Amino acid sequence: MRLHHVGIAVEDLEEAKARYQSLGFRVVAEGEVAHQGVRVALLRGEGEALLELLSPLGPETPVGRFLAKRGPGLHHLAFATPQIEEDLARLKAEGAKLIDEAPRPGFGGHRVAFLHPSFGLGVLWELVEA
Amino acid sequence: MRLHHVGIAVEDLEEAKARYQSLGFRVVAEGEVAHQGVRVALLRGEGEALLELLSPLGPETPVGRFLAKRGPGLHHLAFATPQIEEDLARLKAEGAKLIDEAPRPGFGGHRVAFLHPSFGLGVLWELVEA
Repeated sequence: MRLHHVGIAVEDLEEAKARYQSLGFRVVAEGEVAHQGVRVALLRGEGEALLELLSPLGPETPVGRFLAKRGPGLHHLAFATPQIEEDLARLKAEGAKLIDEAPRPGFGGHRVAFLHPSFGLGVLWELVEA
Repeated sequence: MRLHHVGIAVEDLEEAKARYQSLGFRVVAEGEVAHQGVRVALLRGEGEALLELLSPLGPETPVGRFLAKRGPGLHHLAFATPQIEEDLARLKAEGAKLIDEAPRPGFGGHRVAFLHPSFGLGVLWELVEA
């Protein structure tokens, strides 16, 4: 697998976009994932790995609760795989606790699945079919 | 710039290496950065961006204090630039608070500099000359 993106929880999406534009990253996609209660901006630099800025649509959302508990900052790592079902099954067999037992639609049309951070040793892992 | 690596604070380096090997990442370098009080394992997957696992050499080290306060998890983002002095000066002029006013030797022989997470909106940023 390879690192597909790093998810970053932010309070103010416009401020965060500007801050990462200072590093030469540019917005390549932006939109809402309504069922996750989140507004997303996807940024690309000169490399392949992306940054995914996540701004909550309200306090009672996963990212809203994250911000209330931990403040803004690094939120998750997403890994690209061409075989998401096989990798989910394999990781489950290795002891991973899955948040998503089956892939579901994520931002940008990719199928995604999250794994509980207990398996990632404190890091929330996402698999992205790509 | 591009994402050079993601720094991850871990309690047990061997356990963490094994966990990321489950995602197909392999260790490409390992060693100690004595003046930072940290043992480092650098992992590469199929992409360019690396994972840097950080295990403290003792509790009174930057990563030791991070673990005591926040627990294991995502620690910092590092961005590659060919012109580290120029970028540091520019970011300082844009309002960044620098942890390292000048580049210093980092793991693997690269020159590096950290920026205070206030500028990264809760994210510790590192510039890596690469």
